[in-house]
Amino acid sequence: MSLLVTGSIGIDTVKTPHGVSEDCLGGAAVYFSMAASFFSPVRFVGVVGSDCPFDLSKVFAGRDVDLTGLEVRPQSKTFRWAGSYRGDMNDRTTDYMELNVLAEAPPSVPEAFKDSKLVFLANTAPALQHELLGQIEAPAFVAADTMNCWIQDHLDDLKALLEKIDCLIINEDEARMLANEHNLIRAARKILDMGTGLVIIKKGESGSITFSADGDKFILPAYPAADVKDPTGAGDSFAGGFMGCLAQRGRTDFETLKTAVAYGTVVASFTIADFSLDGLTSTDRVRIDERLQTLRNLTRF
Amino acid sequence: MSLLVTGSIGIDTVKTPHGVSEDCLGGAAVYFSMAASFFSPVRFVGVVGSDCPFDLSKVFAGRDVDLTGLEVRPQSKTFRWAGSYRGDMNDRTTDYMELNVLAEAPPSVPEAFKDSKLVFLANTAPALQHELLGQIEAPAFVAADTMNCWIQDHLDDLKALLEKIDCLIINEDEARMLANEHNLIRAARKILDMGTGLVIIKKGESGSITFSADGDKFILPAYPAADVKDPTGAGDSFAGGFMGCLAQRGRTDFETLKTAVAYGTVVASFTIADFSLDGLTSTDRVRIDERLQTLRNLTRF
Repeated sequence: MSLLVTGSIGIDTVKTPHGVSEDCLGGAAVYFSMAASFFSPVRFVGVVGSDCPFDLSKVFAGRDVDLTGLEVRPQSKTFRWAGSYRGDMNDRTTDYMELNVLAEAPPSVPEAFKDSKLVFLANTAPALQHELLGQIEAPAFVAADTMNCWIQDHLDDLKALLEKIDCLIINEDEARMLANEHNLIRAARKILDMGTGLVIIKKGESGSITFSADGDKFILPAYPAADVKDPTGAGDSFAGGFMGCLAQRGRTDFETLKTAVAYGTVVASFTIADFSLDGLTSTDRVRIDERLQTLRNLTRF
Repeated sequence: MSLLVTGSIGIDTVKTPHGVSEDCLGGAAVYFSMAASFFSPVRFVGVVGSDCPFDLSKVFAGRDVDLTGLEVRPQSKTFRWAGSYRGDMNDRTTDYMELNVLAEAPPSVPEAFKDSKLVFLANTAPALQHELLGQIEAPAFVAADTMNCWIQDHLDDLKALLEKIDCLIINEDEARMLANEHNLIRAARKILDMGTGLVIIKKGESGSITFSADGDKFILPAYPAADVKDPTGAGDSFAGGFMGCLAQRGRTDFETLKTAVAYGTVVASFTIADFSLDGLTSTDRVRIDERLQTLRNLTRF
């Protein structure tokens, strides 16, 4: 099935106990596309300013990522983000964020992409996610990410979006905030009651829980990572592996969703092993599949 | 295989958002024995003062818990502990603790118990754990628990103990403290380097990781619990289910250890559903086995 992603392209500066990576390539759509490209072709929709130092056609060279939806705005500046991670890498601080082009009108979905069946709406204002989704003719399965600021300040927009999508992918703190509920099992149920058919709550080094409105459940630990250099992009890589697997298999039944979650988990474990996209670009599908089998063995009893 | 536990018997007062349980029965050896009794006979070693309001022979009526090792000291007072849990039940505050009889000499292991093969040394001063262990003639598999105060103030004693035991069962914060390492995978390896053949790191609502010195690994999520009333005793119930399963099966190979970890996880999920021992005493082996199968299905892909 055809897979489309809309999301940010960023110039990131990341500090971790393992080093500093200045002005490196980042952004949700970039991590997502790199991760998904191990599984299926990707249709990329995003926008940068004229200052963007990265040539995405080179970044994705040799990968089936269609950049027809990449818009360069001559009068605009590219999104910038800087963040720091402390000791255990589970908490991060945003040092600065310049929305720049992301504060403008969203990019248009190209005509050739409008028949996309699988859609991932990376984190942005829920009203923009809604608008982007409206440009797709007949999506079969739509997943979205969100974050705390939209939950706090744009809750009505977010709830309207939840009624239109099939899957919310969200981290545990955001799930608790959205559901106003400490217990994650109850939080998952409350989020499903808001209208989405599936919720995946990401727990960082503790894996994820996946609940469906039909009562299906899947709980998976993270791949055990002893060497975490930079967690940036882990969530978007998870989403990329997840959606890429669904696109490759052409199905969204719960058994396939479980395998897709496991692939997302494994792909994210490569992302966090190095700065920027280096962890992803230095692996391949064979190693991803090996790690999937390892994860299966580690959790089986 | 014969299973012996040494540990505390307590008069607990617990406050959670779900209510208050005053002067109820608690203590590591009590939770452990109740949990293990679903699987195998238990030999109980512990000490109380003359003020103890609980008749343990009635508490364990109908269960194969041998109280020959229960010592009542007429001049002493029973251990007391009071604690409070906040919102998400993952953090607790100790409101007060009166060691009382636990600050005196440890109980003696009865002659009839000295041939025990499986031994669980519940949390106490590592020097006392060492002394108790010395009373067992030829144990086959020894597991121990510990806590932050011993790691901080009695590290040499604890390290000496780790060279004598087969398995350390420890929670994640304590594992990080003991290993002086944030990353839990690295922490597990460092703890194994201290001499124990197996380490089980408990992560509360996120399950556990089990690493062996031989390189075997097992990662298991917690059973998804929507209704957590009182987490007190969860760790000791986990240890009881774990050791009880090993005793019943009479083996300690890694495949059996994995199943035992899963049983410990499931038994703990019953403990936290109610105050004091009520969650454990209101279940049975059939329901424990059903929940084990559910956990297996929830994690399989």
